[in-house]
Amino acid sequence: MLRIAICGGSGYTGGELLRILSGHPLITITTVTSERSAGKSVTDLFPNLHQYSNLTYELLRPGNILDKADMFFMALPHGESQEVVDFFFRKGKKVIDLSADYRLKDPKIYQQWYKVEHKFQKLLRRAVYGLPELYRKKLSETNLVANPGCYPTGAILGLYPSVKNKLIDITSIVIDSKSGTSGAGRKADIAFSYCEVNEGFKAYSVSTHRHTPEIEQELSLIAGKNIKVNFTPHLAPFDRGLLSTIYARLTKSIDTKRVLEVYKKEYINEPSIKILEEGRFPNVKNVRGTNYCEIGLAVNKRTNTLIVVTAIDNLMKGASGAAVQNMNIMMGFDEKTALDTAGLFP
Amino acid sequence: MLRIAICGGSGYTGGELLRILSGHPLITITTVTSERSAGKSVTDLFPNLHQYSNLTYELLRPGNILDKADMFFMALPHGESQEVVDFFFRKGKKVIDLSADYRLKDPKIYQQWYKVEHKFQKLLRRAVYGLPELYRKKLSETNLVANPGCYPTGAILGLYPSVKNKLIDITSIVIDSKSGTSGAGRKADIAFSYCEVNEGFKAYSVSTHRHTPEIEQELSLIAGKNIKVNFTPHLAPFDRGLLSTIYARLTKSIDTKRVLEVYKKEYINEPSIKILEEGRFPNVKNVRGTNYCEIGLAVNKRTNTLIVVTAIDNLMKGASGAAVQNMNIMMGFDEKTALDTAGLFP
Amino acid sequence: MLRIAICGGSGYTGGELLRILSGHPLITITTVTSERSAGKSVTDLFPNLHQYSNLTYELLRPGNILDKADMFFMALPHGESQEVVDFFFRKGKKVIDLSADYRLKDPKIYQQWYKVEHKFQKLLRRAVYGLPELYRKKLSETNLVANPGCYPTGAILGLYPSVKNKLIDITSIVIDSKSGTSGAGRKADIAFSYCEVNEGFKAYSVSTHRHTPEIEQELSLIAGKNIKVNFTPHLAPFDRGLLSTIYARLTKSIDTKRVLEVYKKEYINEPSIKILEEGRFPNVKNVRGTNYCEIGLAVNKRTNTLIVVTAIDNLMKGASGAAVQNMNIMMGFDEKTALDTAGLFP
Amino acid sequence: MLRIAICGGSGYTGGELLRILSGHPLITITTVTSERSAGKSVTDLFPNLHQYSNLTYELLRPGNILDKADMFFMALPHGESQEVVDFFFRKGKKVIDLSADYRLKDPKIYQQWYKVEHKFQKLLRRAVYGLPELYRKKLSETNLVANPGCYPTGAILGLYPSVKNKLIDITSIVIDSKSGTSGAGRKADIAFSYCEVNEGFKAYSVSTHRHTPEIEQELSLIAGKNIKVNFTPHLAPFDRGLLSTIYARLTKSIDTKRVLEVYKKEYINEPSIKILEEGRFPNVKNVRGTNYCEIGLAVNKRTNTLIVVTAIDNLMKGASGAAVQNMNIMMGFDEKTALDTAGLFP
Repeated sequence: MLRIAICGGSGYTGGELLRILSGHPLITITTVTSERSAGKSVTDLFPNLHQYSNLTYELLRPGNILDKADMFFMALPHGESQEVVDFFFRKGKKVIDLSADYRLKDPKIYQQWYKVEHKFQKLLRRAVYGLPELYRKKLSETNLVANPGCYPTGAILGLYPSVKNKLIDITSIVIDSKSGTSGAGRKADIAFSYCEVNEGFKAYSVSTHRHTPEIEQELSLIAGKNIKVNFTPHLAPFDRGLLSTIYARLTKSIDTKRVLEVYKKEYINEPSIKILEEGRFPNVKNVRGTNYCEIGLAVNKRTNTLIVVTAIDNLMKGASGAAVQNMNIMMGFDEKTALDTAGLFP
Repeated sequence: MLRIAICGGSGYTGGELLRILSGHPLITITTVTSERSAGKSVTDLFPNLHQYSNLTYELLRPGNILDKADMFFMALPHGESQEVVDFFFRKGKKVIDLSADYRLKDPKIYQQWYKVEHKFQKLLRRAVYGLPELYRKKLSETNLVANPGCYPTGAILGLYPSVKNKLIDITSIVIDSKSGTSGAGRKADIAFSYCEVNEGFKAYSVSTHRHTPEIEQELSLIAGKNIKVNFTPHLAPFDRGLLSTIYARLTKSIDTKRVLEVYKKEYINEPSIKILEEGRFPNVKNVRGTNYCEIGLAVNKRTNTLIVVTAIDNLMKGASGAAVQNMNIMMGFDEKTALDTAGLFP
Repeated sequence: MLRIAICGGSGYTGGELLRILSGHPLITITTVTSERSAGKSVTDLFPNLHQYSNLTYELLRPGNILDKADMFFMALPHGESQEVVDFFFRKGKKVIDLSADYRLKDPKIYQQWYKVEHKFQKLLRRAVYGLPELYRKKLSETNLVANPGCYPTGAILGLYPSVKNKLIDITSIVIDSKSGTSGAGRKADIAFSYCEVNEGFKAYSVSTHRHTPEIEQELSLIAGKNIKVNFTPHLAPFDRGLLSTIYARLTKSIDTKRVLEVYKKEYINEPSIKILEEGRFPNVKNVRGTNYCEIGLAVNKRTNTLIVVTAIDNLMKGASGAAVQNMNIMMGFDEKTALDTAGLFP
Repeated sequence: MLRIAICGGSGYTGGELLRILSGHPLITITTVTSERSAGKSVTDLFPNLHQYSNLTYELLRPGNILDKADMFFMALPHGESQEVVDFFFRKGKKVIDLSADYRLKDPKIYQQWYKVEHKFQKLLRRAVYGLPELYRKKLSETNLVANPGCYPTGAILGLYPSVKNKLIDITSIVIDSKSGTSGAGRKADIAFSYCEVNEGFKAYSVSTHRHTPEIEQELSLIAGKNIKVNFTPHLAPFDRGLLSTIYARLTKSIDTKRVLEVYKKEYINEPSIKILEEGRFPNVKNVRGTNYCEIGLAVNKRTNTLIVVTAIDNLMKGASGAAVQNMNIMMGFDEKTALDTAGLFP
């Protein structure tokens, strides 16, 4: 049994890790930390997780928990992960960091967008970006995974085949994303209270969201050229789900059927990708509680534009599901273990 | 492998059966019927159920499907189940009927509340009411289960220990229930369209709901006396979940702690029952996607009244989860098979 | 023009007062206070209220604002109102207190439920409980109104005709109430964040809610006898609205039609009461944004029980709408001024 | 008093007309028609509209109602309006058509998108497109207004100043719109039932929505050049509101502040337009129940792209509110009459 520690386990991504892992036959959770909730049981904070009534939150003291686990999931706020990740990695542990701290390869860009200096640049170079569809082999060989952000996951998976196959004008990309409110985390904030969010819908961080450089980094690596994108996130009144509507001008005349073929070929063996038939488009409700990314697309002949729509569950493929998928790959487990469940509908 | 047929598989309870059974290792689904959707695949109607893309709805022709399955789940409208259930039962098949047709022992009461004559009264006497907490042994020996209604499940489980132990005045029972909208089924009806239900809340069928005699039948059997209850259902703006707040005058002076002990003792080995600690009360959000019934309670000393609150997922413990639990019992499988999943939160 | 000050104008009830009063032709708002938001404009906190972009929150310094207004609305937290209300009242101002501080006639009961001593008991005796349906004449003659709580409004209006006309056994009253989340106020609290409330439903403060003594006080005054009630509030996933389902055993045989006649007669001239026809029941969606209380009822002949259902908008008839109604009565304005708008549906 | 008939008054736009007009001091509603609900009272279908309990739906027999009104609002399905509009117009009546039948100037384009021939092309040329911000003078002189679609209103108002002032590359326009579910109308359809829409979010009619040519027609008229746009509508889980996020490449280097000045200047006297300060963006919740269009914008310097976000209430400025605004202009009433209410928040 692989022994697992979850650092920062009182928020929604931590809770989702606990939920998924409760169905994983090859692991055991030995440790879960929370600065705010130390001393409480997991079931106190997550009444849906009855099976963890005897698992108690402790304070994150890296030295104290080092020997209790082999695999460390880090679900800490951005900036707070850097040092702890380095500690566990240097001690020979496997680490999956769900924060943004090891995602951006260029420490200057990290500092520019996150307003924090990166103090572990050597380690930064060794981290593998946790998108199996792009880096499966590297993930199987690394001890440190930088788990992607939710928005980048939906955007990159929607654009990867088009960029790789040079179908689109890379200067024309628009990514319009709509996220469920769990994406904002579990926190006391009037802006995310029920009556402010319910029956509302708004754009936020227009052109300034921190996931922008992450999207651009990966698309640029695929293209072999520097890509800048227009990315607008929106806050939507549902719990889970992230829909991205992506627009890019086509570089040549091509029809929907042919583009679908390119996508199907590119993702043919991907267990998390579902390409929808022509005329069908994703709905966040169809992927709720699953690790799938649904992809639908259409060519607009009138404007010579490709429109790709992707839907994920932001807590699953957008965070904790992806983290477990990455763990499975790192450990040589069947990649779908604990992730092959049907979505909850309605 | 147990071969399963689902008759009436295009509605929410049918879809939920398919979802649960996709995680059951000892069965295989061979047949699913739908009058409206014959020819379509399950995935067409339930995009969340990717695994059934090759399973196609057919028309319900009992003779045609008889040899294809050993166990028949009936998710047909009330009144339409009677005859088909009889057919499969006579042919030696096991049947779990999710409709109301075999729940009420007295055919006169059935006719009075459902406005349909019961033509299979002999079979009616052999049906076992599918609440394992009351009838586990009988369920393990029958070929015909009448799966309980969602409201009766929440109400009876909340009252059983009190009635059995004569804690309450059985003439004083009030059951105030709030159901998620999936309880109304999957149908084209303006009254259940999004904009009519959302941001609304209402009582309906006040004192006239068809689940009333079902609640009364079972409580009366427990008490050994005729019980009449006040039962008011409400339509609530969420997908899944059924919360019942139950009031009854206490027959003697007793405190919350002691009543909790009675409930814990009564349900000590029940895999689907969760008794909450004093001061805690259920939330439908905690049981979403699970087969649990959460129970919380308090004694109001000022009025000498017991207040019990129960929460279930109306599609799980309130319908399809209970049906699978009953199948597991009938077949001698571990009762929790395919039902032991953590709830989806948030 | 009546000059108005709103003390505590940054929460939902304060905002609702500002919204209603924006349509009142006989008043002008001169002052609005907020301890947290002093210096900001009303429009900053309520983007829906464009017309107040030049009205700026100030700190509540009673001496400073005394001369700026004739009528003071107090939307302060319980316990914080006591002294300020006394100050303005002694200076000859008219005061409507939306807190609980002047609602309970017995200071011992106030202290028992609110854990605060009442230091202005003399003034307490002069406050009029702001339910026009019971106290219209007194309201027209007072300078101090204790505006009712939302739950008491729905409960008392539903029970008043029955208790007054001795239709029901006053020892058997059950009040099961479901409130929209705005009833919890505008605050940073994880328990009221979107993802905790959405798709959830729960009972809270079972048998211990502070509105209980307020309901009992008024019902006891109507009955001329001491009444204790079972009252359970629930938190529901919608913004506005409060539905109460009320149960009481009938003292004699009487049918629905006859009870409806009693209610219609009792409320014949009430501008805020809508009695629904037999067979119809209230929906919170029908009264959203209005000052109406919808009342529907039925007699359950099988149990000899009366079931009354009431629906109000908790921010309107349950708080700020009632406050404006009371102001209109105190000032001799047409009682419906600024309150006679159609509900927003859907 | 202006006598008004509403043809097709049982749907959401008809109900909204009735709601708005209940606060209009210069009109009286004499007639309301519905094919499905003839014989019922308005209050039967809209319990929020208590004031219309004596107004009864009748069948639409143009000859019968001709003499009962001076102004006819047509809230009929597309295709069904053509002939009736022609009838009332020829009889010298004023007509505001809320359907699409008289919006598209080119009957070929109408036929191409709506699959219906236009049989009243002469009248089509006389209809004025009901966007006061573009056509106020013409609206004050016409007897026939083609009331705009909801999506075109949000899109055109967001783009008008940019296109007119040649700020943007008109070949690069992307309009990503999110509509509340009331935009689908009041109908019995599983796809719009509560459990299908709630907790979901999807794109639909990708590149094929019928509002596309309407947007293109008006933008082309502003530009004096043929414009094609990428337009994607989405179905969102809230009742009311329509948010459009619009992207277009800038033709020159210009900053957010300067673009805001252009917008403010262009809309300086517009009673329905609210330009938000730099850094602020619209929320559908802020305009609920109002006739405002909120506009926020930002220049993305990194991609040289303008992002404009607009929010309207789809039933108000997107339909019935605009219709009343147009009526006020046609009749010489103050344009804001019955429309100057504060939004309902929360």
